[in-house]
Amino acid sequence: MSKNIGPEYVRAIAPYQSGKPIAEVAREFGLDEAAIVKLASNENPYGMPESAKQAMIAAIDDLGRYPDANGFELKAVLSKRYDVPADWITLGNGSNDILEIAAHAFVEHGQSVVYSQYSFAVYALATQGLGARHIVVPAQAYGHDLDAMAAAIADDTRLVFIANPNNPTGTFLTAAQLEAFLQKVPQHVVVVLDEAYNEFLSADDQYESTAWVRQYPNLVVSRTLSKAYGLAGLRIGFAIAQPALTDLMNRIRQPFNVNSLAQAAAIAALNDKDFLEQSARNNAAGYQQFTQAFAQLGLEYVPSHGNFVLVKVGDDDGAGARVNLALLKQGVIVRPVGSYGLPQWLRISIGLPQENAIFIAALTKALA
Amino acid sequence: MSKNIGPEYVRAIAPYQSGKPIAEVAREFGLDEAAIVKLASNENPYGMPESAKQAMIAAIDDLGRYPDANGFELKAVLSKRYDVPADWITLGNGSNDILEIAAHAFVEHGQSVVYSQYSFAVYALATQGLGARHIVVPAQAYGHDLDAMAAAIADDTRLVFIANPNNPTGTFLTAAQLEAFLQKVPQHVVVVLDEAYNEFLSADDQYESTAWVRQYPNLVVSRTLSKAYGLAGLRIGFAIAQPALTDLMNRIRQPFNVNSLAQAAAIAALNDKDFLEQSARNNAAGYQQFTQAFAQLGLEYVPSHGNFVLVKVGDDDGAGARVNLALLKQGVIVRPVGSYGLPQWLRISIGLPQENAIFIAALTKALA
Repeated sequence: MSKNIGPEYVRAIAPYQSGKPIAEVAREFGLDEAAIVKLASNENPYGMPESAKQAMIAAIDDLGRYPDANGFELKAVLSKRYDVPADWITLGNGSNDILEIAAHAFVEHGQSVVYSQYSFAVYALATQGLGARHIVVPAQAYGHDLDAMAAAIADDTRLVFIANPNNPTGTFLTAAQLEAFLQKVPQHVVVVLDEAYNEFLSADDQYESTAWVRQYPNLVVSRTLSKAYGLAGLRIGFAIAQPALTDLMNRIRQPFNVNSLAQAAAIAALNDKDFLEQSARNNAAGYQQFTQAFAQLGLEYVPSHGNFVLVKVGDDDGAGARVNLALLKQGVIVRPVGSYGLPQWLRISIGLPQENAIFIAALTKALA
Repeated sequence: MSKNIGPEYVRAIAPYQSGKPIAEVAREFGLDEAAIVKLASNENPYGMPESAKQAMIAAIDDLGRYPDANGFELKAVLSKRYDVPADWITLGNGSNDILEIAAHAFVEHGQSVVYSQYSFAVYALATQGLGARHIVVPAQAYGHDLDAMAAAIADDTRLVFIANPNNPTGTFLTAAQLEAFLQKVPQHVVVVLDEAYNEFLSADDQYESTAWVRQYPNLVVSRTLSKAYGLAGLRIGFAIAQPALTDLMNRIRQPFNVNSLAQAAAIAALNDKDFLEQSARNNAAGYQQFTQAFAQLGLEYVPSHGNFVLVKVGDDDGAGARVNLALLKQGVIVRPVGSYGLPQWLRISIGLPQENAIFIAALTKALA
């Protein structure tokens, strides 16, 4: 290949490191797939809700047709649920797609994007993929330093990414902190509030960001059905924003970005309160199980508001990779976060009680 | 919203006009969904193959998990089928995604993209979405003028899109014409050869573009499973190119762009020769049915190598829209192509014999 194919900023992209699939670990380590515990990708340990599976099966006969490019029925459900008109909604192929679409719709080459150190990897990828300038604001206690982020907004800044709760650290910003921040941001700078883990918040922590969208014409709220709703394999997320922003996002969106089964399953999952409550209960119990074990093992962890916990497994920069390998050999897949600049830490997704127990036993052995 | 949100080139995007979904036409015209014939989106009239449906159902229990970001099993099948290593393959959320990924991976703001007048709308969208410069080469007999396209390549050109067969016109370029063109293109200019309709070519017209990839380091062959393979609703396409280009495309690709069911179904569909042959046979027969009717009605059409025919329904620029509306009222959905600069024409997808007959009767009535 001649050396000058592709923009320099594309050639500089460091590809996303995803959680190892179970089949891949089984192949690599010669393990039985059924014996592997995967706590690596913040997935719902219950899988997809039965209601969504039934809705999907009912939609299975129409797959020779393109999906509804406008997502009429799914948007009707979201519209009712969040009390916004359908033209305030953008559908995404997962919320990863929403984050990429927002970057493309609002930022051009050479302008800048503000996001926090230790925040979700896709913010850096989306910024880099545009040849935009990264303004990475140092974290405060592993979370967003909103005052510093507001101060970091430059003349050429067009987008700020905020994750709440944050992945991979699990930190949380209160409604009051977020509103104070939104009031400071100039109206020509779009704020993407990425709430992929919103449904795991306790009742006390919950806030109505979708109502803020009415007040802030530069706010995009991003949600996913990959986490609490259990639809990661189907790919579906959405954004809520005022029509002017939504219109721009839909110009960038690929027309058939959300497949037909994801649309059908999402409608069912959104209406399945029992599944959501069961997932939240399991998550709260698993969090206790993890944090008690970490305390017993004398391990530092970051208090988490998501369905995962960031835990420090050693004091040297080889610790994360070393303990990760020791866990893989025991058939436990977790997420190393060296690429986030956290080489001493691992991120562990909360699983079912028995999966959590297997991980704790394996971790104990790995550290011994 | 403040007026300066979003790059000017994003605000200038004209959103893609997709085929109207059956449910939408039923709502708009007060028709029974079951009575509607949709020949608007070049879908497979058989729907998805039964083999793919079974493979999909077998994969249904794992949808709480993220898809395999690397598509290990699907790439293994493609690798064997096309005799290329797995790291020559990029998976897309439909080939629409492949086209967008290629534009992002190879072109930056201000550089130019060459494509033909009357070629697939996504080339213009992908170019515009990057703020790149459009070099639109006038068509020759509704198809690509490859000599003019080669001559149109500018110093700042980084990408050429070629559709073969072309959508929406159905025109075809022979292997000899394509190879002569590839030999003329400078190596730093990437050629995306979009073969979404390849499987409908007659045995005589078939050529081995995937073998050309070995010879031309700047060639990307794009394929889809939305057409002949009947998987439009699931979203799956792929590209074959040398590793250097493939690596860049995978840096731009969203890691979980292809959902788990699409990956499972694609493996089965690719191995289902009978379904593909049945689809091709039906298509050839439907093409005869259409062109005989057009001849009887005295309508000009463009000889097509795809699963659709472009037909001229009047001499005035209101003809396409007027006949389209008359067809919609009779419950027949086809594709107006005014947005392609073809306001006197309609594009009709080839359906099952009885669907084709309903369309022909409705068209006859609309023109009377």
